[in-house]
Amino acid sequence: MSDEWSLLSKIPAILEEQHFVRVPDHEPVVRFEFPEDLKKLVDFTLDSDEPRDQAGVEQIIKQVLQYSVRTGHANFHNQLFAGVDPYGLAGSWITDALNTSQYTFEVGPAFTLIEDALIAKCLQLFGFVEGDGILAPGGSISNMYAMVAARYRALPRVKRTGLANQPTLVAFTSEDAHYSIKKAVHWLGIGIDNLVLVRTDPGGCMIPEELEKAIGTVLASGRQPFFVNSTAGTTVLGAFDPFERIADICERHNLWLHVDSCLGGSAILSRKHSHLLAGVERADSLAWNPHKTLGAPLQCSIFLLKHKGLLHECNSANADYLFQQDKFYDVSYDTGDKSVQCGRKVDAFKIWLMFKARGDCGLAELVENAFDCAEFFTGEVRKRDGFRLVLEQIQYTNVGFWYVPKKLRVPEEQQDDAWWAKIYEVTAIIKERLVKQGSVLIGYVPRPHKKIGNFFRMVVTCHPRPTHSSMKFVIDEIERVGEML
Amino acid sequence: MSDEWSLLSKIPAILEEQHFVRVPDHEPVVRFEFPEDLKKLVDFTLDSDEPRDQAGVEQIIKQVLQYSVRTGHANFHNQLFAGVDPYGLAGSWITDALNTSQYTFEVGPAFTLIEDALIAKCLQLFGFVEGDGILAPGGSISNMYAMVAARYRALPRVKRTGLANQPTLVAFTSEDAHYSIKKAVHWLGIGIDNLVLVRTDPGGCMIPEELEKAIGTVLASGRQPFFVNSTAGTTVLGAFDPFERIADICERHNLWLHVDSCLGGSAILSRKHSHLLAGVERADSLAWNPHKTLGAPLQCSIFLLKHKGLLHECNSANADYLFQQDKFYDVSYDTGDKSVQCGRKVDAFKIWLMFKARGDCGLAELVENAFDCAEFFTGEVRKRDGFRLVLEQIQYTNVGFWYVPKKLRVPEEQQDDAWWAKIYEVTAIIKERLVKQGSVLIGYVPRPHKKIGNFFRMVVTCHPRPTHSSMKFVIDEIERVGEML
Repeated sequence: MSDEWSLLSKIPAILEEQHFVRVPDHEPVVRFEFPEDLKKLVDFTLDSDEPRDQAGVEQIIKQVLQYSVRTGHANFHNQLFAGVDPYGLAGSWITDALNTSQYTFEVGPAFTLIEDALIAKCLQLFGFVEGDGILAPGGSISNMYAMVAARYRALPRVKRTGLANQPTLVAFTSEDAHYSIKKAVHWLGIGIDNLVLVRTDPGGCMIPEELEKAIGTVLASGRQPFFVNSTAGTTVLGAFDPFERIADICERHNLWLHVDSCLGGSAILSRKHSHLLAGVERADSLAWNPHKTLGAPLQCSIFLLKHKGLLHECNSANADYLFQQDKFYDVSYDTGDKSVQCGRKVDAFKIWLMFKARGDCGLAELVENAFDCAEFFTGEVRKRDGFRLVLEQIQYTNVGFWYVPKKLRVPEEQQDDAWWAKIYEVTAIIKERLVKQGSVLIGYVPRPHKKIGNFFRMVVTCHPRPTHSSMKFVIDEIERVGEML
Repeated sequence: MSDEWSLLSKIPAILEEQHFVRVPDHEPVVRFEFPEDLKKLVDFTLDSDEPRDQAGVEQIIKQVLQYSVRTGHANFHNQLFAGVDPYGLAGSWITDALNTSQYTFEVGPAFTLIEDALIAKCLQLFGFVEGDGILAPGGSISNMYAMVAARYRALPRVKRTGLANQPTLVAFTSEDAHYSIKKAVHWLGIGIDNLVLVRTDPGGCMIPEELEKAIGTVLASGRQPFFVNSTAGTTVLGAFDPFERIADICERHNLWLHVDSCLGGSAILSRKHSHLLAGVERADSLAWNPHKTLGAPLQCSIFLLKHKGLLHECNSANADYLFQQDKFYDVSYDTGDKSVQCGRKVDAFKIWLMFKARGDCGLAELVENAFDCAEFFTGEVRKRDGFRLVLEQIQYTNVGFWYVPKKLRVPEEQQDDAWWAKIYEVTAIIKERLVKQGSVLIGYVPRPHKKIGNFFRMVVTCHPRPTHSSMKFVIDEIERVGEML
């Protein structure tokens, strides 16, 4: 065929030359430019109709790389994901090239069986004796799968009738839970007013007594509770809800219990840390994103549920042009009608290949190293002058903290609202300077429902492999930049 | 870093050795094995905890490849997608390696601006003077975006209240439209009973008078019409609805008009064929999947809507931990709160790079070649003994046809139901044999609502570049296999 294919074999070298794989520490995490400036540096528009030769295409690629973020840099801690697992990336490249859909055995024979095997493995890992599952394009969609299944169990006729003229359904989640639950009640027609945000303790864990009380209030109002979302690893603090006690409540009220363990699910891989997830085996469903802590390339989200057959019954549309029942093989291997999608990208192969390459023990070791580094980071923050932890103890690999510049180090009794306002502002300014210097990318977050303003959220993941010295670097940099304020 | 990265640079060579890029014609499209047999040939389970060395991982990859389908083979015509555009694949590999999310400018500076530029280009292509858009993980989700936006426009309070105690909303689509509309009304709480399937003509196009009539019936029943889905390139026949007349009706009744041009949208690139889409510029929203005809790697789906600001207003959840309003750059570049997802894979870069590399003219030429080959194929079927077209004229690049084995070639008056039942059966048997021989992959489909059983659905796409001789090969193979029956 034509020479167009030759570009492909150059991609690994281009990525290495431009320091996007095996990223050297001295490279900036990003060369930041403001949006309007960046538009002047690179012609992003598609206004020109000129085709380009191979060299021209390579040049465009290099321009895009030049102004992109190195999430695979040791000092990238800005999101719940960071660098990729090289085996995961290999899997991703292969599925891109094979360009098929996950919906029928016919076009994805190996990939269909790989997804099955992965689901079976995950059901076993999370202690679901039997069940079913599907890979979804991200945790928000996985959480929606859960809510749709729960709604179907509560009111199966809704699939036909819709929600008009039906009881008003109410969902529960904690005030520290991910906003995808809010988006889900909107999309699914439940409505944001019918989502109860249950209070959390100072550590970000749902307070079971508050859930019980909230259910009582909803029942008294004549509405129908149907779904409780609990979280394993909240977005900001990495908190784990008390699953056993929440499961007791859900059982008592016959409510669907979903565990959003998109972030924290990776703890299941380590015997040392899996206790965090004790009780999730009692849930009806669970979502886990190996594309976060574990470094499977985006997107890789696994939705599991305990009720065999329900996913198909709930979501099927019986499209006869795709899922012909007179096929010559066992069509129960066609998974497409369990999905809300039609064409579905193969996401299972990446994490399956990571399991195959590293074994459970290898993945456990990566997770334990991330926990160890997060602990180390927490210890450094605790003992370093001018640093202050948001919570004395961390549960997962997120660490919330503030930096207090020298001139603001005053006795506790002088730390009034005006003082805190300055600390919150300092946090945002330090972050800005770090981005502009490109040395460290770290996020900051507020907790408005706890009346807490901006603090740094350090996130430790498996890739690129964090070390004590890469942890110390982040603290040193914040101190260095903070002292110049 | 460790040697794990060295695997990456081998992937292009492995794919070429195993004939997944530059696929030679003599390679089988697939080495078919039944699911239970395939499980014996490859250990898909994740039961073993053993890590593997590099060679072991390569061996697993090769096993998976051995039993995978070559969608990039000249004789793969089984789905609405086929092989990839090499530039699209290059884009895909790069975004996989850069592993970032599309939600904020901060972590995807170039990719955010690339998505903006792509949306601007598409708005202009489809004749939307202004508007907004977002890349979604597939056409089904794009169509759901449309329905959610339409619902929000019709009843904005539903975002808060949900659908209980609200008017019963009703959506309309044609009986030949994609089943994702059915899944959308289910998920979004509208209900399948509140989706009206409007009758189509024999060619698969929605009959406007039937739509008008259906709207009247719904209004008379006291329910509230809010959404009409029309189709540009139906899944089975590639039919285009009469957009102008449907737009007139929607305007008259103040209904949201969505165009599902996931398949047929690629016609817009060719001056010769864009007339098929005349009238879509009057729609409120539109979905287009460059991952179908055009060969952008899966997933690549573009959702456009005419109403600036609505996408954000409708879908925002104001998550302050991610979309901080006190950032140091213009946060209107953060697109994440327009999305129903949180983390969102970068899909825009693939098709953007295809535009940059080929120019509009290059893409137009690819589309025109696909149309030309589909026309040629249709002509061959028309003139070849024993072949029979489902429709005398095609609209897009799908061709429906039957093969009639010699012993079944009887005069028209003897072609009764029993005879047709045999033809339908023959279609499935030929397909089975072709798969088992691995020479051609082509789908078959019924049209139950028109009381038509299985026929072959030939699909012509841009990649790998089809030729008249690759078209003839499909017909010859069906004849060869069919004659042995």
